[in-house]
Amino acid sequence: MHLPKPGGFDAAFEHVCGDWLAEQPLPVIACGMVGSAQGWREAPYCPTPARAADLSAHLRTLDTASGHRLHIVPGVIEHGALPNVMRGEETQVLGLLRGLAEEHRNGHLLVGLPGSHSKWVRVENGCITHFDTFMTGELYAIASAHSILGRTQQRDAPFQAAAFERGVRTALSDTGALGPLSTAFSARTLGLTGVLDGAEQADYLSGLWIGHEVQALRQSTVALPEVLLIGNEALCERYTRALGLAGFPHPTTATQATERGLWAVAEAAGLVASASKEFIHA
Amino acid sequence: MHLPKPGGFDAAFEHVCGDWLAEQPLPVIACGMVGSAQGWREAPYCPTPARAADLSAHLRTLDTASGHRLHIVPGVIEHGALPNVMRGEETQVLGLLRGLAEEHRNGHLLVGLPGSHSKWVRVENGCITHFDTFMTGELYAIASAHSILGRTQQRDAPFQAAAFERGVRTALSDTGALGPLSTAFSARTLGLTGVLDGAEQADYLSGLWIGHEVQALRQSTVALPEVLLIGNEALCERYTRALGLAGFPHPTTATQATERGLWAVAEAAGLVASASKEFIHA
Repeated sequence: MHLPKPGGFDAAFEHVCGDWLAEQPLPVIACGMVGSAQGWREAPYCPTPARAADLSAHLRTLDTASGHRLHIVPGVIEHGALPNVMRGEETQVLGLLRGLAEEHRNGHLLVGLPGSHSKWVRVENGCITHFDTFMTGELYAIASAHSILGRTQQRDAPFQAAAFERGVRTALSDTGALGPLSTAFSARTLGLTGVLDGAEQADYLSGLWIGHEVQALRQSTVALPEVLLIGNEALCERYTRALGLAGFPHPTTATQATERGLWAVAEAAGLVASASKEFIHA
Repeated sequence: MHLPKPGGFDAAFEHVCGDWLAEQPLPVIACGMVGSAQGWREAPYCPTPARAADLSAHLRTLDTASGHRLHIVPGVIEHGALPNVMRGEETQVLGLLRGLAEEHRNGHLLVGLPGSHSKWVRVENGCITHFDTFMTGELYAIASAHSILGRTQQRDAPFQAAAFERGVRTALSDTGALGPLSTAFSARTLGLTGVLDGAEQADYLSGLWIGHEVQALRQSTVALPEVLLIGNEALCERYTRALGLAGFPHPTTATQATERGLWAVAEAAGLVASASKEFIHA
């Protein structure tokens, strides 16, 4: 996400929302990097465990140049030896919960948000209790763009399912035990030995590293939980394949998670009435 | 390593060796990327297990424009699900063996060659039986140069030993179990939470990923073997620290491994007489 330059937030806001708000005054709420230290106004992280009520109690507000009050949802931090932070994903997770039937919402869930920095969020009875980050997406992108692995990749090829699954299976097998810093080199040597052509090498590496991510999740849990995914459709499809090969139950992919999540926080904060749920679809 | 453009090999050779060879004709031998598909002449890989005699029996030759015969040492390949290749390191390993006392040379050794793509070579009774590659060095360099982790790193700082060791310990501990794709994000969050300053973040990440490499080696072996290192002094010092924290015996660092290795292969090939060992120091 590219943020506007300092001072440019008001103009961007006016461009996106000005017409709507001129027609009818509405409560305004936003989440994500708008609340980071480099955003419009910093909204300090809420610690885990975090529910919608915790986030709504810590909304950060600012008054825009056009006279509207903007509410910014804080991100979430988990303290510990390896601290973890997220901004925006917490709101998507709450939105996903809102879209679930009661019996699912009150169970134990693992919510995956694939992306440059994928988040894996544990939810227990509607509360975010723990999450991990994997830099798989960003590291894959820079390895393809800047490392020796990219030199022989043909990256405009259509999705190579067999190569992707070969990568996943390698990461999940004993062969993958040395981890992603080591197995990555096989994307090159399987090319050198004529096993993978240029069109297959990128998706093999993608499968390999997503496979290591899924393997780490599998090893960190006693029983494989119900998994829900939020994100880009093509990326969720890759993770769905990898999770399936690792033995996870078939994941459900959520839609409209951000909108539903913002609504959930706005409702918990009293910015909108609970009865007007359908308003978001107006 | 930047190879000369096609046709430029002769000029480069003449520049480096012309004066010596004009003074006195000598056998000429080389190893490394000069024998790759993009090198002067491709020297096909020898498969493991590989001894000096196997390499010397497969020297590739070419006649230079100046009328000298160049012998190129082949690289080594290990076939399997994750093929591995090396060029140059096999010669360094043979050189290291040559420098060892008899009782060490005939044991089981683990030889580490840290670099962009570090190699870990198993040697049994003077024979290269197995090796692994870790792309730790190159992936660290591109993560620092191109990922979000680099944005807050201050890379001109002197070596930050405590931050490096913090990274190693994290990778070796239960906290590191999710692997390098996940723990890498802590280089950012420990900055965000004020635990590591910009000068510490680069060496923390270096320690973290070298730690994951050493942890993978530790987990892949039943008994920790005697370790010998070949390479850049500062990098070997980092690996020595990490190996020590992982419980490996203090490694020995080898010198003149390339020269001794080329000599060993030349001798095995009959290019030089066995009696003239001291010639290399002339």
